Amino acid sequence: MRILFVGDIMGNAGQEILETYLPQLKQKYHPQATVVNGENATRGKGIDRYAYKRLLSAGADVITMGNHTWDNPAIEEFIGEAKKLIRPANFSAGQVPGRGYTLIQINQLKLAVVNLQGRVFMAPSDDPFAIAERLIKHLLKQTKLIVVDFHAETTSEKEAFSWYFDGKVSAVIGTHTHVQTNDARILPQGTAFLSDVGMTGPYDGILGMQRSEVIKRFVNQMPTRFEVDEQGRRGLGACLVDLDDVSGKAKQIRTIQINPDHPFMF
Amino acid sequence: MRILFVGDIMGNAGQEILETYLPQLKQKYHPQATVVNGENATRGKGIDRYAYKRLLSAGADVITMGNHTWDNPAIEEFIGEAKKLIRPANFSAGQVPGRGYTLIQINQLKLAVVNLQGRVFMAPSDDPFAIAERLIKHLLKQTKLIVVDFHAETTSEKEAFSWYFDGKVSAVIGTHTHVQTNDARILPQGTAFLSDVGMTGPYDGILGMQRSEVIKRFVNQMPTRFEVDEQGRRGLGACLVDLDDVSGKAKQIRTIQINPDHPFMF
Amino acid sequence: MRILFVGDIMGNAGQEILETYLPQLKQKYHPQATVVNGENATRGKGIDRYAYKRLLSAGADVITMGNHTWDNPAIEEFIGEAKKLIRPANFSAGQVPGRGYTLIQINQLKLAVVNLQGRVFMAPSDDPFAIAERLIKHLLKQTKLIVVDFHAETTSEKEAFSWYFDGKVSAVIGTHTHVQTNDARILPQGTAFLSDVGMTGPYDGILGMQRSEVIKRFVNQMPTRFEVDEQGRRGLGACLVDLDDVSGKAKQIRTIQINPDHPFMF
Amino acid sequence: MRILFVGDIMGNAGQEILETYLPQLKQKYHPQATVVNGENATRGKGIDRYAYKRLLSAGADVITMGNHTWDNPAIEEFIGEAKKLIRPANFSAGQVPGRGYTLIQINQLKLAVVNLQGRVFMAPSDDPFAIAERLIKHLLKQTKLIVVDFHAETTSEKEAFSWYFDGKVSAVIGTHTHVQTNDARILPQGTAFLSDVGMTGPYDGILGMQRSEVIKRFVNQMPTRFEVDEQGRRGLGACLVDLDDVSGKAKQIRTIQINPDHPFMF
Ligand SMILES: [Fe+2]
Ligand SMILES: [Fe+2]
Ligand SMILES: [Fe+2]
Ligand SMILES: [Fe+2]
Ligand SMILES: [Fe+2]
Ligand SMILES: [Fe+2]
Ligand SMILES: [Fe+2]
Ligand SMILES: [Fe+2]
Repeated sequence: MRILFVGDIMGNAGQEILETYLPQLKQKYHPQATVVNGENATRGKGIDRYAYKRLLSAGADVITMGNHTWDNPAIEEFIGEAKKLIRPANFSAGQVPGRGYTLIQINQLKLAVVNLQGRVFMAPSDDPFAIAERLIKHLLKQTKLIVVDFHAETTSEKEAFSWYFDGKVSAVIGTHTHVQTNDARILPQGTAFLSDVGMTGPYDGILGMQRSEVIKRFVNQMPTRFEVDEQGRRGLGACLVDLDDVSGKAKQIRTIQINPDHPFMF
Repeated sequence: MRILFVGDIMGNAGQEILETYLPQLKQKYHPQATVVNGENATRGKGIDRYAYKRLLSAGADVITMGNHTWDNPAIEEFIGEAKKLIRPANFSAGQVPGRGYTLIQINQLKLAVVNLQGRVFMAPSDDPFAIAERLIKHLLKQTKLIVVDFHAETTSEKEAFSWYFDGKVSAVIGTHTHVQTNDARILPQGTAFLSDVGMTGPYDGILGMQRSEVIKRFVNQMPTRFEVDEQGRRGLGACLVDLDDVSGKAKQIRTIQINPDHPFMF
Repeated sequence: MRILFVGDIMGNAGQEILETYLPQLKQKYHPQATVVNGENATRGKGIDRYAYKRLLSAGADVITMGNHTWDNPAIEEFIGEAKKLIRPANFSAGQVPGRGYTLIQINQLKLAVVNLQGRVFMAPSDDPFAIAERLIKHLLKQTKLIVVDFHAETTSEKEAFSWYFDGKVSAVIGTHTHVQTNDARILPQGTAFLSDVGMTGPYDGILGMQRSEVIKRFVNQMPTRFEVDEQGRRGLGACLVDLDDVSGKAKQIRTIQINPDHPFMF
Repeated sequence: MRILFVGDIMGNAGQEILETYLPQLKQKYHPQATVVNGENATRGKGIDRYAYKRLLSAGADVITMGNHTWDNPAIEEFIGEAKKLIRPANFSAGQVPGRGYTLIQINQLKLAVVNLQGRVFMAPSDDPFAIAERLIKHLLKQTKLIVVDFHAETTSEKEAFSWYFDGKVSAVIGTHTHVQTNDARILPQGTAFLSDVGMTGPYDGILGMQRSEVIKRFVNQMPTRFEVDEQGRRGLGACLVDLDDVSGKAKQIRTIQINPDHPFMF
């Protein structure tokens, strides 16, 4: 099974570049499933029903989230029924709406997608290692094809997580920093790993936000309003993972970026 | 001018892989100057005189540091006289030994190398934006060839810094996360930028440390002793930047990695 | 000289209890100067011109601020001309409006009030130790009567600051935690010290905010809107410092609290 | 039932002042149970068997811990059998030795003592609100007399915790900041609350550590070795809580401090 994983969609700019290139990426690479991180889909902060549906229309099969999950309160209106949207599974057990994983049927196969969030330099959440261990044990009864979106800040937590679950899941794909890393590899027991898949949206912003306001904040610490840099050039960050259908082990992982410095080539 | 920048050397493993490949990298790419981050050179924490000299013998022209600068107290014995070692320039002004930049002569040209540290999710330090602004103004009187090692945790601070100084310095190369990023580019005003150049040392550790202890810490939060993973396979993270000698603008930047998944090819 | 220092005024509740008791406190204790922290005066976040004037009308001589200084953008309209309002002196040097200290004339004497902010578990700012050292040296040319509002989170930074400047300033009064501490004392070289003077406003909120929303955040980490608990019972946190007019040394410091459990007694 | 709660014992200085005054405090106040926080008992970091026994000999009935629980590895040798020692109950469930609460028999009555740790500005741990809710429900089957040592950094988390469990536990006593707060009160549903009971040990150190080294760290951020200030004057921080034996509600809470500025008076 081949899976395409697309990093954090930032606002309308992110939606548009996804709409432009996802069909072409599918034509070129023929993934059986497409996972898209949508935590920044609505104006950079959270996701509303419109953005959710738009991502699905663009071709996403599963939408994952992260620390911005609740930023847009509109999510509470539809997360209960949104079968293709998951939020970190280690959000306060039983206290919040939504689900932390989903299973999708692809021909004869089942693919599990799990969303988890790190704890270092992030808001408190339940232990991702403990929650993942329990959840993966449960999922392994249904499928060996398990992909994790590990939404975390530090490289240490991301590496520790991936090595800890090496051989137990098919892939650990990091999100959150909005910068693609250059460390895609297959760990010894067969788990594909990438610290961060990067962002999909503005190419000349700071993490996708308008530069001037972010820089102002760094220069004088005065509050500013961060807005998605909707007008400029765009980029897309993604990766492609090939799994062995029987063993669930990863056979290959490679990064994809499309932007003015790396134009899409069919 | 072509500059080779090699990411954080981790312990003996890092020294050894540097000694193996730096000569070959020089033969292949012919850089005029080699900058190496040495904050983890001695057992992963700081640098002593022996490790400093060893890096120079291996072929480094300038050694930069970071948050681990003072971890090994032996540095205080030689930093005063170590002309090729710099530590973040925004360490408490006038209160600590060492210097935050250096100028090296390369044929007819002068290259300035500056070391700065970020503040987000890091120990307090002086404002890197303000310090850099003053320092760069001063350096520009002597040369237009200025390379900054910006040692920082978050992608936002790294991007903000590079955009703020776009056109004023030749290159901003990030260090500290120990994971190479895939965002090398030339910003519109001519500054080469890479969020993180990655680490040089163990390939199967966690940020270069032995996995088992780091994982234990994540799993149960009990203290453990982190040691460099000295026995296993190794990797090297670097980048190459080409500068226009007259304007100081960057003409090209590309990442280099050498490891079992990316063997060196001449 | 006797100085009354009143802790962070929270919203209208804080203004009202100040208006009720400040006249009575003055009648009872006869302070020559009243310093009031106003960083939460306008709906708990920042201060606008109306709240500033209201605090002065209530009897404040100097208003100090803290990490909430810029929360209400209205401050930028009047801080330039507000002679009795100071913000932390270690906010990005030269980059932000307002001043970090003020001198007020009291009969034949001059009192300097300085505002500084800590760095541990707070947004980055310039080094409060270095900035204070320079500023105090400058102020000592004009007066020995110097009171510092040190706005900081941790007890360690507050204690370190006060011991470092023991004998150089008359008093270091902590603010920010909104909880009065029980450690008022005179340090050996004559500086009065109190880790935190506490808050002035709601008595049954959480740091003055409505409990239900704050608790919700702790229970499930979902975002909520924090609002000042304006309807309930109120409390006032303050302290009284007596200084020797000639030496500037503190002779006495004692805490004051007025609330349902500690009614005001004349 | 009357309970004496003594704040963090710092090193030998803390042990000695406890040995001096605990007998006198017992003679004066006649508490039925004495709870002592021992996380800093052995040289300021953790606790070994000797310090544990010494605290019991001095008159402690229950020893609580905090973020320093594992600092001294010697604890792992005896925590399994140490019936009177508890560590935060929200340490990684099932992964670490020791227990998070204990029940002690006092004549006809049972007293439960629970230890929990906050998460704001502290290392990750399991959700203290969720863990406490489950644990308290369980304990209420056996007794209504429940005292919680809530070891946390911020006043907001401490206040939120105490209000959330108001009426469900007899008392929430905060520890960790090493500075006694002045907010002892009985909440409306009958829970006694004190944000922080303070420290027991050096009176002229910084949080009990030698000043010079701590100050150095703040001034230039270079690493130093913190040691308990064993030679100087000492202080003791404690509180006294009176509970209704039948309802478990608190009837009274008052702080105690013994130090050069507040000498013990019988
Ligand atoms: Fe995120
Ligand atoms: Fe994101
Ligand atoms: Fe490093
Ligand atoms: Fe570093
Ligand atoms: Fe405040
Ligand atoms: Fe504050
Ligand atoms: Fe402690
Ligand atoms: Fe503690």
